[in-house]
Amino acid sequence: MKAQAVYPDTETTFYEEVKRAHLLPLWKLGTLLTTEPLSTVAPYIWRRSRYLPLLLQAGDLAPVERGGERRALQLSNPGLGGDWATTHTLVAAVQLLRPGETAPAHRHTPAAIRFIMEGQGAYTAVNGERCYMSPGDLVLTPSWEWHDHGNETATPIIWMDGLDVPLVRALQSMFFQPYGENVYPVSKPANDSLKLFGAGGVRPTFTKPKGMNSPLLIYPWDQTLAALEALGDREGSPFDGLILEYTNPVTGGHVMPTMACYIQLLRPGERTRAHRQTTSAVYYVLRGEGQTVINGLRLRWGSGDLIALPPWVWHDHANLSPGSDAVLFSIQDTPTFEALGLYREEAHESPQMIRGEYQDD
Amino acid sequence: MKAQAVYPDTETTFYEEVKRAHLLPLWKLGTLLTTEPLSTVAPYIWRRSRYLPLLLQAGDLAPVERGGERRALQLSNPGLGGDWATTHTLVAAVQLLRPGETAPAHRHTPAAIRFIMEGQGAYTAVNGERCYMSPGDLVLTPSWEWHDHGNETATPIIWMDGLDVPLVRALQSMFFQPYGENVYPVSKPANDSLKLFGAGGVRPTFTKPKGMNSPLLIYPWDQTLAALEALGDREGSPFDGLILEYTNPVTGGHVMPTMACYIQLLRPGERTRAHRQTTSAVYYVLRGEGQTVINGLRLRWGSGDLIALPPWVWHDHANLSPGSDAVLFSIQDTPTFEALGLYREEAHESPQMIRGEYQDD
Amino acid sequence: MKAQAVYPDTETTFYEEVKRAHLLPLWKLGTLLTTEPLSTVAPYIWRRSRYLPLLLQAGDLAPVERGGERRALQLSNPGLGGDWATTHTLVAAVQLLRPGETAPAHRHTPAAIRFIMEGQGAYTAVNGERCYMSPGDLVLTPSWEWHDHGNETATPIIWMDGLDVPLVRALQSMFFQPYGENVYPVSKPANDSLKLFGAGGVRPTFTKPKGMNSPLLIYPWDQTLAALEALGDREGSPFDGLILEYTNPVTGGHVMPTMACYIQLLRPGERTRAHRQTTSAVYYVLRGEGQTVINGLRLRWGSGDLIALPPWVWHDHANLSPGSDAVLFSIQDTPTFEALGLYREEAHESPQMIRGEYQDD
Amino acid sequence: MKAQAVYPDTETTFYEEVKRAHLLPLWKLGTLLTTEPLSTVAPYIWRRSRYLPLLLQAGDLAPVERGGERRALQLSNPGLGGDWATTHTLVAAVQLLRPGETAPAHRHTPAAIRFIMEGQGAYTAVNGERCYMSPGDLVLTPSWEWHDHGNETATPIIWMDGLDVPLVRALQSMFFQPYGENVYPVSKPANDSLKLFGAGGVRPTFTKPKGMNSPLLIYPWDQTLAALEALGDREGSPFDGLILEYTNPVTGGHVMPTMACYIQLLRPGERTRAHRQTTSAVYYVLRGEGQTVINGLRLRWGSGDLIALPPWVWHDHANLSPGSDAVLFSIQDTPTFEALGLYREEAHESPQMIRGEYQDD
Repeated sequence: MKAQAVYPDTETTFYEEVKRAHLLPLWKLGTLLTTEPLSTVAPYIWRRSRYLPLLLQAGDLAPVERGGERRALQLSNPGLGGDWATTHTLVAAVQLLRPGETAPAHRHTPAAIRFIMEGQGAYTAVNGERCYMSPGDLVLTPSWEWHDHGNETATPIIWMDGLDVPLVRALQSMFFQPYGENVYPVSKPANDSLKLFGAGGVRPTFTKPKGMNSPLLIYPWDQTLAALEALGDREGSPFDGLILEYTNPVTGGHVMPTMACYIQLLRPGERTRAHRQTTSAVYYVLRGEGQTVINGLRLRWGSGDLIALPPWVWHDHANLSPGSDAVLFSIQDTPTFEALGLYREEAHESPQMIRGEYQDD
Repeated sequence: MKAQAVYPDTETTFYEEVKRAHLLPLWKLGTLLTTEPLSTVAPYIWRRSRYLPLLLQAGDLAPVERGGERRALQLSNPGLGGDWATTHTLVAAVQLLRPGETAPAHRHTPAAIRFIMEGQGAYTAVNGERCYMSPGDLVLTPSWEWHDHGNETATPIIWMDGLDVPLVRALQSMFFQPYGENVYPVSKPANDSLKLFGAGGVRPTFTKPKGMNSPLLIYPWDQTLAALEALGDREGSPFDGLILEYTNPVTGGHVMPTMACYIQLLRPGERTRAHRQTTSAVYYVLRGEGQTVINGLRLRWGSGDLIALPPWVWHDHANLSPGSDAVLFSIQDTPTFEALGLYREEAHESPQMIRGEYQDD
Repeated sequence: MKAQAVYPDTETTFYEEVKRAHLLPLWKLGTLLTTEPLSTVAPYIWRRSRYLPLLLQAGDLAPVERGGERRALQLSNPGLGGDWATTHTLVAAVQLLRPGETAPAHRHTPAAIRFIMEGQGAYTAVNGERCYMSPGDLVLTPSWEWHDHGNETATPIIWMDGLDVPLVRALQSMFFQPYGENVYPVSKPANDSLKLFGAGGVRPTFTKPKGMNSPLLIYPWDQTLAALEALGDREGSPFDGLILEYTNPVTGGHVMPTMACYIQLLRPGERTRAHRQTTSAVYYVLRGEGQTVINGLRLRWGSGDLIALPPWVWHDHANLSPGSDAVLFSIQDTPTFEALGLYREEAHESPQMIRGEYQDD
Repeated sequence: MKAQAVYPDTETTFYEEVKRAHLLPLWKLGTLLTTEPLSTVAPYIWRRSRYLPLLLQAGDLAPVERGGERRALQLSNPGLGGDWATTHTLVAAVQLLRPGETAPAHRHTPAAIRFIMEGQGAYTAVNGERCYMSPGDLVLTPSWEWHDHGNETATPIIWMDGLDVPLVRALQSMFFQPYGENVYPVSKPANDSLKLFGAGGVRPTFTKPKGMNSPLLIYPWDQTLAALEALGDREGSPFDGLILEYTNPVTGGHVMPTMACYIQLLRPGERTRAHRQTTSAVYYVLRGEGQTVINGLRLRWGSGDLIALPPWVWHDHANLSPGSDAVLFSIQDTPTFEALGLYREEAHESPQMIRGEYQDD
């Protein structure tokens, strides 16, 4: 600061030299500091009628084997440049495992969930525990846990995958390891964690799980549905209707440190109030016909559809059927935003106006 | 410290003056610092065959009304001088409510639990929620929550009460308030907390209970039993067999900050290893025939008996039946000792020798 | 419940039988459920002018040696029956160590603090670290840590002890162990924990203390005084003036799980508002002349006095000097009551009336 | 799954249709799952001799005013495509404020720290508290707190900025708000938080800060240096020498939820062991001459240099001076990785080989 070095004598030269020195002048970067988030994530629907034939066809074209690892079609958000990302933090996929197939054992830092769409009796094995899957079940394969899948039944199984891959990639923390064998050794009874940790209100004291992930690996649909139905006719959330979060029985909190899972029921004709959050989500329509209005754009959805919800967009949901419930499963990045102090939420004061209709491309 | 005051000229006078000054010479108090705890709590069994007739007779003698508040017989530990204490921190009681009776609404700082022994369909109301009780159910009335009991059925109901009264008294923190009316207004559906928080694995997001107590107020026996049975043939705790703790669904931890509740199943012929803890317990034998050996003394118990376990005594449990399970419910002061850094546990290396037989008085 | 046993035929006989069965009829126990705490702890002052001559005389009469362990005069609250208790949870004492003396190494479950009154350069050693003590310093010897004291200087040292002995006794959790040698081996530099953890705002990352106790063992007076003075002329607490809590640098919380330590400064002429808490305290007047009004009774105090504050009593403090600060050190059982959900506090609306003067006995 | 739609009859057509449907075949994406992180962040040094003249020149070229907001040169990592990012989660900058200048008040979700390089007596104001800055001081402006800077002295001030901007951008959570006036109103005494929360070992009880950020806003260098010197000749961290983390006095934890700050001292001739972590860092050489070896590449640094450390690279530090200490300040993204369960660390077994020399471009 005392003796100034000789420096270029024109403004142009200055900026060139700044650039060469790998510096950026903050005073020229105004648009980076946006008043509020301008998300590049697009609202988008992957229709069952479109992805399912492709997934079934993939069953013929793509073997499940080491290297490819999984027969899964990733939902690539059109706003994110063809990347492996359904939102900026989450990726969802649809996966098919045909009778007799095994998806080889591996582990990775991205955390994953499976939500079963169709098929019955195939398993996901996590650290030696086989979780046998039925439609509506949620199965967890937390970060860095060995897992493989097998279908020893006579019918194909299809599920939704949900992972935090875009987040892990943004944090440059991808670790991946294939297991030496195709199948990780079975060391526990089937659905062992369910027997230990699946009950409401009680928990064994003779095992003390540690860490940030739920030790409960499978959340059976019949149990979840019963819990939804037990909520009865109460009001629920003004923004989400009757909504339940899947929880870690040891902490009562989120199932994983980066990703939370929810199930919500919209009653016939119910339309929720709009709100917006800094978080993003991927919804799977388990049943029903309805709509989600996102920043004034109406997306109509039906059973089996998958929907990307960008961060910080006004959104409300409605069940358009006069006679049946609609049920949505979702993954959301809420734990990440809470942990980093970036969670923010606003309620829309009046009902959200519908200003346009989403068009499938 | 510089100029010493005139002081008495003999040692006797010194100690008299010390006493007058409300001082105690530490160097004369050696026995206070015991090598390990010498509990004044006695191991003791209250037999069903003895307490039940008295409780039923109390039904004729003692009305349930404001002032007396409850028709309950407190288990008074013989080692604690006739005090309202089953151990030094816990008190248990047996309570009877006859058809048509109402136990008036009040609240108090001691936390309470009810474990239903006999009868079906009477209720405990907590803050406006009626919990309808069946045998084996656990009902919570946490510290300072309004509660009343009512029996609108045609048969009497009997339950075990468990409270932290001795602890609250030792801490001189007793607050008590009768409600202005006999019955606190009903403001919620029956078993409302069970519908919201009773399910395994999921929890509503639209209500966010705070504080240190479980928002789940009733733990139905069928659900608890199913969880016990789901544990199957695994080893369980070496000290307690197949044991479950009742948990707060919001935190995954103890149901209350001062008192924890457990259910444990001993398989036919099973005898556990002995250990000792700084905590104390009151057991209720839900079913079965067995024994608990306490510091070498064998206490044989049967269905319906209640047992006081002192702190820091070696103890193991056994199911003496060759063909049926034994099931024990217990309240324990574990949370208190953990929170204050005073929890300590030791495992007995060899099987505990039986050196005497407990005699009923 | 089905077949009733034959039972006595008169009410008198019933109550006799209930008593013989070690049962207590709740409906006869009304006074146990008090509207609010009726503490047996008495407000009391131990005057420096009275205890100091006795302590100095004890220097001649009582050697410091194994068995007696310490030359300390315990403050025995007149309301607590001559027990080793200054309040129902806390005990304070004054202790003297003369030149050349050593108080032998031991450990015990009660947690202890020392607050130095007079003398300079003697040490308290905790787990191999010698903490060299000066007036106004706070030294911790947490639960179950080896500790001994030594005075290698030419002048006596006197300090206040503060322990949670009554609490530990009520919980029947007393463990005590003398060390095999008189002095526990020195394994660390003097005041090592102060060098590691004593600074404001920063903390080493290469050592990760665990557990519920502060790893910082000595809080030097000059640092504490500087912090008090830095508070300047701000309002502070309406109930306690400028008050600081000694904290665990690893958690930011209380120094120990059962007992908290505070220093507070009352400015010339300042009188605080009254409040009451479920907690109790022992105060030491480090400097100044003032009063504490307890449930309308005025206790006037001066430098060196020690005062017992019962739980749930209205109390306010005043500095009666027009020209100098008053400084009070105190131990309080706040962490215990917070952890157990029993902390409660009320502010007195109007200034507390003085209805009587405390008389020394 | 029952009735399959008509689908294309060749593999090529299949992949085209998959792409059109915004799906990605996982089995074609092998390289995304890397065995371990392949960071795009480059190790890089911004030399004081290069950035300082440019910053001083910027003083002539770029006014500090609304819109540009700050006269800061951002360190743009060559591996990150000219982005506003020094690592993938952190951005550092050097900032100049000349006599009489004011940097206008605003707030934003990115959290920021300032580490003072040169100049004395200018202030950073946070929520109405002016923190007066000297070389070596650390100043925090946590997420979404109003802040402005002013230099009312006769000499320029230069500091390092550190922010979590790349993380907040990756999470699409950028909120920014200029304050209506140039200067946010002063509502507190200067360095108020330092007086309340800056002391070691004690903390006021009459103010209870909430939230995830440290309420202490300025960490003065003299206090930090004294803490470093108090560590004396102990070993410290094998990887970082004598290292201190700046802490939140209320929690004992990191100063912010996304970013941690450290100061470390390397003794003359000291070379640390290598380790690698999933976290990244930006170092500022406060004093000394030394080197950091990153994956075998030696980067020699001197006083005033700034260094980007990528994630998951082996690195060790050395002080190359035989006679003086080297001191490094750093910001690291540790809290983010810990909170999300992605923190991982490995120690290098043998000393790291030097296989190349870093060349300035």
